[in-house]
Amino acid sequence: MCQLLGMNCNVPTDIVFSFEGFRRRGGVTDHHADGFGIAFFEERGVRLFQDNTACATSPVADLVRDYPISSKNVLAHIRKATQGQVSLANTHPFMREMWGQYWLFAHNGNLKNFTPPQGEYYRPVGNTDSEAAFCFILEALRRKFATPPSVEAVFAEVARLCHELRAFGLLNFMLSNGEWLLVHCGSLLHYIVRRAPFGTAHLADDDVEIDFSAVTTPDDRVAVVATLPLTNNEHWEQLAVNELALFQNGEVLLRDAPSAPYYPSIEEGLEMARQAAQ
Amino acid sequence: MCQLLGMNCNVPTDIVFSFEGFRRRGGVTDHHADGFGIAFFEERGVRLFQDNTACATSPVADLVRDYPISSKNVLAHIRKATQGQVSLANTHPFMREMWGQYWLFAHNGNLKNFTPPQGEYYRPVGNTDSEAAFCFILEALRRKFATPPSVEAVFAEVARLCHELRAFGLLNFMLSNGEWLLVHCGSLLHYIVRRAPFGTAHLADDDVEIDFSAVTTPDDRVAVVATLPLTNNEHWEQLAVNELALFQNGEVLLRDAPSAPYYPSIEEGLEMARQAAQ
Repeated sequence: MCQLLGMNCNVPTDIVFSFEGFRRRGGVTDHHADGFGIAFFEERGVRLFQDNTACATSPVADLVRDYPISSKNVLAHIRKATQGQVSLANTHPFMREMWGQYWLFAHNGNLKNFTPPQGEYYRPVGNTDSEAAFCFILEALRRKFATPPSVEAVFAEVARLCHELRAFGLLNFMLSNGEWLLVHCGSLLHYIVRRAPFGTAHLADDDVEIDFSAVTTPDDRVAVVATLPLTNNEHWEQLAVNELALFQNGEVLLRDAPSAPYYPSIEEGLEMARQAAQ
Repeated sequence: MCQLLGMNCNVPTDIVFSFEGFRRRGGVTDHHADGFGIAFFEERGVRLFQDNTACATSPVADLVRDYPISSKNVLAHIRKATQGQVSLANTHPFMREMWGQYWLFAHNGNLKNFTPPQGEYYRPVGNTDSEAAFCFILEALRRKFATPPSVEAVFAEVARLCHELRAFGLLNFMLSNGEWLLVHCGSLLHYIVRRAPFGTAHLADDDVEIDFSAVTTPDDRVAVVATLPLTNNEHWEQLAVNELALFQNGEVLLRDAPSAPYYPSIEEGLEMARQAAQ
């Protein structure tokens, strides 16, 4: 299974701590060695690092560690290939421009026989179900809205599209336009909102600890979303299967949960991904 | 003035030698310290490195040196800001997807009062004349061709668009879709095609020499295009002002030169850029 990591904050924040734990899942503490990608919004621009080698040992990932970048919105993905060969064109996050903004997308799951008609505005470059789903979402948004609508209207349309996409298989994804981070849970997705008073966090994948109170101001608010909790001494909220949430300024702004929410255990969630990958 | 560097080859080739000389112009041997960008096609994918700090000392540029990437098409740009503030969104090369391919664009020049109508398919994210010109070119190509036409048809349409764009000011640019490299000369642009028998080249900006015969096979063909010649012991061809050339598989495939070609000296060419920047 691939793993996802996202961050949304009210002030530009450095993701190095979370990324250090996350990247170890790419080849050291777990088996996701088919490439990785991380993208940082810097105001309207995007800094995108991708590599089709194991994240844990990639020199590109070393650069991310050694050259900390502050960002209000970050998306990262470690890949275990299910569809499409291991190549740069198939490496997440994918990027497109819509309405004069860059949009990023990363997906964990497997959509079977998903072959939407050729887009007028957006077409995949590689051959993954993930990039096809991204283009499908953008194409529908762009056809419906010629200029940027409200965040509520985007959220409602993406919720409708998720309903269509779920029919094809497992769909965990993260989508951002640099203003907000929208996440959809198909099996496992957890989040935490860190705000004052900040405490100390300890990475689950590595013997590393950070005292957030030393690196934040009282007004900072940082939401981190990941497939599995990244720290083992904090409380992470779990998203329900088929739940959609939009984070802005480091907190949940919009949420669309099923009427009878289901929260799989980590073992069940991993099994859902294994089944979907077959 | 900004500087441009492009490479087009018949086999994936490492650009480290050329980039090492080129990057010294970003803050050491010349004054282009407002950021840089380099993009490598890897099959259909793109690896894009950008930084809004001086290229000569950037850790991102160090990564490019230490982690050599082989590519058939490379574009690089060192920026001296004329329009638009120094920011990541304004850093070349710019990237978009068209017809299911990534397209890259880097520009050196200054288009004044260039404000094309809002695109249906492509809109700028930053606020440079360069990104506006890129979106203008893609928008026109996409409106004219719903699916990829022949390379000759793309070349003819871009030639027509260059005629329109020149009315707004200085236009040196490089454009690539990963199959070919198209360059337009507005003031200074030089190129060299290296093929067997390969010799030794010496960088103009650094005391570094390379023996290409040791790192190539007899069938290799590598075209390098740059604002100014990068080596001082080889013969570089100069493109005429307003000339358009398309390189494929490491050689010139198409060319559109003015009927009375003008080849400025380097001093004249630099003066043209200074005048255009005002």
